[in-house]
Amino acid sequence: MADLDILDAYRPLFYPRSIAVVGASSNPFKLGFHALLAAKSAGFAGEIFAVNPKAGEEIQGVKAFRRISDLPDNIDLFVYAIPDKMVVPAVREAVEKGGRAGVIFAGGFREVGPDGVKLQRALVEAAGRGGMKLIGPNCIGVVNTHVGLNATFAVPLGGIKKGGVSVVSQSGGVGMCIVSHLFDEGVGLGKFVSIGNRANVEFADMVEYLALDPDTSVICLFIEGIDDARQFLMRARKYARLKPVIAYNRGYTEKSSGVALSHTGSMASSEEVYRGAFRQAGIIQAESLVEMAVLAKCFSMGVRLEGNGVFMCTHTAGPAIVIADICERAGVRFPELEPKIAEAMREFLPPHSVPGNPLDMFAQAWTNSSLYLKATDLALRQKNIHCAVAVFQSGMGAGPAFPAREFSQLGHRYGKPTFLCLTAPQAFAKEMEEAQNQGVVTFNRAEKTGAAIVGLTRLLKESRVHDRKK
Amino acid sequence: MADLDILDAYRPLFYPRSIAVVGASSNPFKLGFHALLAAKSAGFAGEIFAVNPKAGEEIQGVKAFRRISDLPDNIDLFVYAIPDKMVVPAVREAVEKGGRAGVIFAGGFREVGPDGVKLQRALVEAAGRGGMKLIGPNCIGVVNTHVGLNATFAVPLGGIKKGGVSVVSQSGGVGMCIVSHLFDEGVGLGKFVSIGNRANVEFADMVEYLALDPDTSVICLFIEGIDDARQFLMRARKYARLKPVIAYNRGYTEKSSGVALSHTGSMASSEEVYRGAFRQAGIIQAESLVEMAVLAKCFSMGVRLEGNGVFMCTHTAGPAIVIADICERAGVRFPELEPKIAEAMREFLPPHSVPGNPLDMFAQAWTNSSLYLKATDLALRQKNIHCAVAVFQSGMGAGPAFPAREFSQLGHRYGKPTFLCLTAPQAFAKEMEEAQNQGVVTFNRAEKTGAAIVGLTRLLKESRVHDRKK
Repeated sequence: MADLDILDAYRPLFYPRSIAVVGASSNPFKLGFHALLAAKSAGFAGEIFAVNPKAGEEIQGVKAFRRISDLPDNIDLFVYAIPDKMVVPAVREAVEKGGRAGVIFAGGFREVGPDGVKLQRALVEAAGRGGMKLIGPNCIGVVNTHVGLNATFAVPLGGIKKGGVSVVSQSGGVGMCIVSHLFDEGVGLGKFVSIGNRANVEFADMVEYLALDPDTSVICLFIEGIDDARQFLMRARKYARLKPVIAYNRGYTEKSSGVALSHTGSMASSEEVYRGAFRQAGIIQAESLVEMAVLAKCFSMGVRLEGNGVFMCTHTAGPAIVIADICERAGVRFPELEPKIAEAMREFLPPHSVPGNPLDMFAQAWTNSSLYLKATDLALRQKNIHCAVAVFQSGMGAGPAFPAREFSQLGHRYGKPTFLCLTAPQAFAKEMEEAQNQGVVTFNRAEKTGAAIVGLTRLLKESRVHDRKK
Repeated sequence: MADLDILDAYRPLFYPRSIAVVGASSNPFKLGFHALLAAKSAGFAGEIFAVNPKAGEEIQGVKAFRRISDLPDNIDLFVYAIPDKMVVPAVREAVEKGGRAGVIFAGGFREVGPDGVKLQRALVEAAGRGGMKLIGPNCIGVVNTHVGLNATFAVPLGGIKKGGVSVVSQSGGVGMCIVSHLFDEGVGLGKFVSIGNRANVEFADMVEYLALDPDTSVICLFIEGIDDARQFLMRARKYARLKPVIAYNRGYTEKSSGVALSHTGSMASSEEVYRGAFRQAGIIQAESLVEMAVLAKCFSMGVRLEGNGVFMCTHTAGPAIVIADICERAGVRFPELEPKIAEAMREFLPPHSVPGNPLDMFAQAWTNSSLYLKATDLALRQKNIHCAVAVFQSGMGAGPAFPAREFSQLGHRYGKPTFLCLTAPQAFAKEMEEAQNQGVVTFNRAEKTGAAIVGLTRLLKESRVHDRKK
């Protein structure tokens, strides 16, 4: 029961009723300009205030104050777009006015050595008196698409599609990359947290919060280094049972760990240590940001595999070869069709098309796409087949369309996931999204399709180590 | 000298003066509908004719004939959108009328077993009498963006940006994937050849032709299997000296090689055999379609590395960590800065930013991007640094822009390539392209930036085996 307190503790950060942008500016060369513009332009329904010692009545049309002490009481969220040296007193003032959460962009804290460590300690102390939750310092802030909250200085983050995948990134830059990948995959974002130096909010806090957060269905983490790894793993192990938690770790090599240290002040650990511990904690490790995005897409659509048997059919063998190659290297299987199923397929397959798995139905299946449905309907009856993959060249508006709705319904009937590799340039992302809205996990690249299946299959093995249902 | 004959031999295929679409149709459920529409709508300046036994005066507004024998003489290119059984006589008729090149979409030839092998042999014989060059059967055809030629049934291929990267793919589907990847990278396409069953045009012919073709600067191959590998390697070895040839091979695993066999009738060979032979022939092997596209982009911009020393600077450490990690795992180095260079940097770096490589200049370098130019200008003076990488979060129209032109000019001054990792969602592809037009090799993903540098560095090692300058 006590668990749920965390939802209240972070309510002012993620669902604030009011925001104050400290350091707000009308000069586009200042961070405070972008921060105020971001706060204003994402559709936030609460109150927004601007603070700047040189302010008139308004900045960018937002009611402005010269001092924090002049603000109304009990503003939920303070966004600090001010230099490092000014942060600690500004946090103290906000706490005195009843502020509950803060986002601090400035660097110059723990990541810069002993003086910075001292400054960060003072910061934590200033916040701690009032229990103010701090994101950063040294970060790009927080987004919650569900309430139009854009507490970053990146205005476009406010326009990202709403969804259930939440991202917590030690690096703001990689966080932006993850959001870009999700965008490419047509996956909606829930919350975005650039966690930076983690003054008093840790990865473990965010995992716990997001695992309980009803607006989040999948959690993505980018981790450079963790200070209290034991703590993190203990809590992650507990909460990773509730929702898929996908982590991508970097900073293993000499130079990359050097950058990580000066970046957000964390020592990167060895690859093996991380891998083993994360696996035990039930955290899914992505090998790349692409894999993270494709797995997040699968999970956000509720897709899991119950075995490593795949049926794949195509009218265009090339991409199917790429997928088969990627899958087989990783231990995924394409079981032989049972004789009676093969026989039944023979009835409707075009000339020269031999019943098999993978199944090539040639160009005839492009113009007559019902062949996909007939073949898949038969194949999914086999016990050792756990999902179906269709490979289809997008007609790109000028040719036939894939019957995504029917294909997806077929999958639901057998309780087995369906995947579509719909090869087309990015420009046709809309088509991909439409197929996805019909319930088929759709990729525009053979390699991503392969990566998704391999990633999901890997979980089968890992679940032997850590049973998610326990 | 004799070499150049091949340019004449393939002139009717790639630069036809006239095209006849056999099987042209006004019914959108027929391939011949899409084939005629494709031929018409890519800006082709020559004559186009339609052939269909049931034709009236026109099909889709194109002058139509009922029989090939009714067509004007000496039409260069015949596009066959008709069933397998009808192809051989139709090729014979075209040869009699002076046809010089043909594209055959239909399957049902060598890939379907003994009967198909016989049919394909008859096809080669029919074409051979007049020296007609055949692309296919079992393919999606040919594109030449330089003359608005779209001899496929995929209308959108006619709208792809013109450029110097030519693609030859055994699989039409993978060919489309490659084109999609090039599109994503903002790289222009030269010629596209879906080579299919290779009735009388082989990979080796296309490598030779494209190596000599002035409109092609980079050659990309997707290979499932080669029949006469010795022949291919001998000719590839000769012509890969003229231009970069990048190959991506699949079909190594059990199922994927099974599909390859039934796909275009080639037996896939073992991975090791291919790798060794290709390396000796000077062919660059891509590990994925993404790597193929990023390398093609580098080569099409004339970028090569002369050593494995990289200088990288950033305002956002995260993506730089990802790049450093990918690079260092593959043996790329980030040399220490020489003391006098480090000292000179200290003059202008923001507080807490320590001269080093990679170099983190914090958010100050985002608003004041001239720091990138100052730092890179110093670092490129070092002998053991062979290229510069800038990592920059796109302002996406609402924030600062990266000084791409000046950064590129800096590179040119030192004769060292420049790379930009401009992280942003795909929707901002235009910005990436603009930076690229300024001469900076630009990627929107840290992973692609890493892949490009690693790929280019790999060539340094491989060039020891096969000196491209000899």
